[in-house]
Amino acid sequence: MNKHLVCYVLGWVMIVIGAMLSLPIIVSFIYHESDFLYFGLLAAACMAVGLISIKIKPKNTTMYVREGYISCALTWVLLSVIGCLPFYISGSIPDFTDALFESVSGFTTTGATILGTNRQIEDLSHSMLFWRSFTNWAGGMGILVFMLAVISQLSGQSNMYLMKAESPGPVVSKLIPKLRGTAVVLYAIYGVMTLIEFLMLVIGRMPVFDALTVSFSTAGTGGFSIKNAGLMAYEGHYYWQAVATAFMFLFAVNFSIYYLIITKKFKQILLSEELRWYFIIFAGAVILIGLDLTINKVYDNQLDIWHHAAFQVSTYISSTGFASKDYDLWPSLSRTTLMIVALVGACAGSTGGGLKVSRVVVLAKSVMRDIRQMLHPNSVYTVKMDGKAVKEDTVRSIHVYLTLFVFVFALSVGILSLDEKMNFETNFTAVIATINNMGPGLADVGPTKNFYEYSTISKYVLIFDMLAGRLELLPMLLLFNVECWSNKR
Amino acid sequence: MNKHLVCYVLGWVMIVIGAMLSLPIIVSFIYHESDFLYFGLLAAACMAVGLISIKIKPKNTTMYVREGYISCALTWVLLSVIGCLPFYISGSIPDFTDALFESVSGFTTTGATILGTNRQIEDLSHSMLFWRSFTNWAGGMGILVFMLAVISQLSGQSNMYLMKAESPGPVVSKLIPKLRGTAVVLYAIYGVMTLIEFLMLVIGRMPVFDALTVSFSTAGTGGFSIKNAGLMAYEGHYYWQAVATAFMFLFAVNFSIYYLIITKKFKQILLSEELRWYFIIFAGAVILIGLDLTINKVYDNQLDIWHHAAFQVSTYISSTGFASKDYDLWPSLSRTTLMIVALVGACAGSTGGGLKVSRVVVLAKSVMRDIRQMLHPNSVYTVKMDGKAVKEDTVRSIHVYLTLFVFVFALSVGILSLDEKMNFETNFTAVIATINNMGPGLADVGPTKNFYEYSTISKYVLIFDMLAGRLELLPMLLLFNVECWSNKR
Repeated sequence: MNKHLVCYVLGWVMIVIGAMLSLPIIVSFIYHESDFLYFGLLAAACMAVGLISIKIKPKNTTMYVREGYISCALTWVLLSVIGCLPFYISGSIPDFTDALFESVSGFTTTGATILGTNRQIEDLSHSMLFWRSFTNWAGGMGILVFMLAVISQLSGQSNMYLMKAESPGPVVSKLIPKLRGTAVVLYAIYGVMTLIEFLMLVIGRMPVFDALTVSFSTAGTGGFSIKNAGLMAYEGHYYWQAVATAFMFLFAVNFSIYYLIITKKFKQILLSEELRWYFIIFAGAVILIGLDLTINKVYDNQLDIWHHAAFQVSTYISSTGFASKDYDLWPSLSRTTLMIVALVGACAGSTGGGLKVSRVVVLAKSVMRDIRQMLHPNSVYTVKMDGKAVKEDTVRSIHVYLTLFVFVFALSVGILSLDEKMNFETNFTAVIATINNMGPGLADVGPTKNFYEYSTISKYVLIFDMLAGRLELLPMLLLFNVECWSNKR
Repeated sequence: MNKHLVCYVLGWVMIVIGAMLSLPIIVSFIYHESDFLYFGLLAAACMAVGLISIKIKPKNTTMYVREGYISCALTWVLLSVIGCLPFYISGSIPDFTDALFESVSGFTTTGATILGTNRQIEDLSHSMLFWRSFTNWAGGMGILVFMLAVISQLSGQSNMYLMKAESPGPVVSKLIPKLRGTAVVLYAIYGVMTLIEFLMLVIGRMPVFDALTVSFSTAGTGGFSIKNAGLMAYEGHYYWQAVATAFMFLFAVNFSIYYLIITKKFKQILLSEELRWYFIIFAGAVILIGLDLTINKVYDNQLDIWHHAAFQVSTYISSTGFASKDYDLWPSLSRTTLMIVALVGACAGSTGGGLKVSRVVVLAKSVMRDIRQMLHPNSVYTVKMDGKAVKEDTVRSIHVYLTLFVFVFALSVGILSLDEKMNFETNFTAVIATINNMGPGLADVGPTKNFYEYSTISKYVLIFDMLAGRLELLPMLLLFNVECWSNKR
């Protein structure tokens, strides 16, 4: 492996982290808080280390698979560790594991928290809360994509692997021939949509700081909130919650769809099978849960039923993890539907998590293909998406992905079960919630609970699951692959 | 589809069922019970229908995939429905769904029961108990394999698909060139091993009727017992339980290994990777659980700890589902380990259930292959088992199998969750227990509980899961495939 190149990339990451850490300083000044000290020091330190690391450009700048994936994995580990320092050093979250958990949960856009039991979220300063929600936003579209967009030194075509490793979904499609252009377009769409949500919330008279942090969390489909009660704190504010519902739904759509809208290629949008299935799954789940809530008379009026059903499906399909109601009190059918929706997840190429709709569709089609193939052994069938045949390599890699997912899942639940305190439902849904970057689960990690009670070992398993889930398993697993680190090709 | 051929096969099935139903008549006479009436009438009726159905041999006797799989699925449905009639007509199990559940659970060698709440197992007559345990034995090696072994009219080579559809595991290997010979060898090994267990138990002074029924259940890795408390009723009888432990372990080994022993091809046995992994998983799980029980001081002495750990792993890896202790009271790590062992399951080509060790090994190797392939895009790697390359078609079909398994699993848990009475752990482990043909799960379907409390809908889902699990998904799913039923090729 070309370690020099990896160090060079990580150097740039440090500089970007430094820049990000400067933002809470502004918040600190606005609210007259003293936390600017921690952020300032950290920002300066990161910048310094970063600038030194990029001083010498590596001789060989060709990025191969392993450099791409390892750089990506290390970027996210670095991000998480440095991102937790403001919480830890300032004493906002005095335990290092807890601070790291919170930081990883933020950047991976999981939104699972350890706050709420011995420390309330409201106890944090504005700048800390800003930083916490900002990690959701920064993690949503990804740090490497951001770097490819803004840092010209990194915009070579061979850096496709960097983007591949960080982008969610089975295949990464370049919107425009140049990699840098694609990254710029993605971040532009992301920024503009976030801004629109922010403005819509402010127009609806949500306090500005709330609107900003909610927009960050929605855009990244993260789910961090500045209230202990999350979005349940806005009970009765139907408009605010509805805006969040709409934007959670929108941020879980493949961003290339928005590019097609901008470039007015409407026909191609209609061709997108993933989008169609995303709509069907969303609508199906809302109807199922709405009927379940109606039959079981969970709420008195139809507005509440459909408002909360749509909100909760939106938050689960996009893996945001907000809650407008304590859905852990809903009937089992609704709760299980939410969990299944979370497993399916968002569209590829969005900020959402989960297996991704396109993967699930390809898996289903591949199963159907095999059955048809069995019945007609002399014909040859292919799996088709959007009217085109999917490459066999892609089908295979999706199957391998599911297999890997099942393995990591089973192992995680296995290790969590060492924690005698928690029941099976808690452990199982905790893993679903973290590996799919969703946030809260059910039972003891439900929407009114948090992850504080887990043991340190369990927290590290969940930290791993969040990172593995965000980077779609391979980069994190390659970190443990000896062969990948060797200098041999 | 050649419906005439399917009817012809089912005609033979009826005759075999008739013959099987005659066996409890003997038991009835021995114990001076009146149940011989029900069995006699049913046996006669089955024989009559069967003899009429096979009167006209179909013109085209070539068995294609669809005929093979549909015949197999219908055989098992027929078997289950007729098999439940003795319970139902005699009033031993007055509810039809419950009787069907019990029958399906028997033939699929699941061993899950609805008895124990309002009706005790001990309330059944000897002939009913014999029939119940006998279904475990008959289902273990399969009815179609039996037919291929004894009915010369069915021994054509094209009936390979019949055997394929019923045999567990990703590939069916013929032990000897002739299909009929293979079937005979399999049933001979099966019969002799059952006999040895029976004799060992009788020598250890277990009552003859107990020994016979325990041997039936162990051989089929079914798990039905003639006691409400199952094998916990033999508390303190270490020898009896140890014999069961050993034979559960042995019946979950690929039967071709025994053929290799008979033919003295010991070298080939050492080559079997599946066998090696089966040992490793077994030993690993016993050690893990043994240590967990020791650390948590669940039992006072080491004998109890290792005796029950080995018994429980043996019963779970073979998907038998006996219990020597209420392991639902064990620490979570042990309970989760048991569930993971159950998911992995037995060796292919054995009477055990689960995904099968060889499938899991191929899946793991396929994942590793893909990672290596990614790091070295210019090389070509294959998945190897027993030193030979596994066909890509086989690898793909195993991936498709896992995908299908996950889909059926998620859907089943989803429908079960309609049952508000049961918690998540109960539903989740009920599906694991049925789809892997294991028997008891945890919590409300744990070793001291039963499946009686489930609603009728849930029971039919579990019935489907048991059948789908026994026949490894495809045959049961093809029943719902319109294309498969059409006359077009």
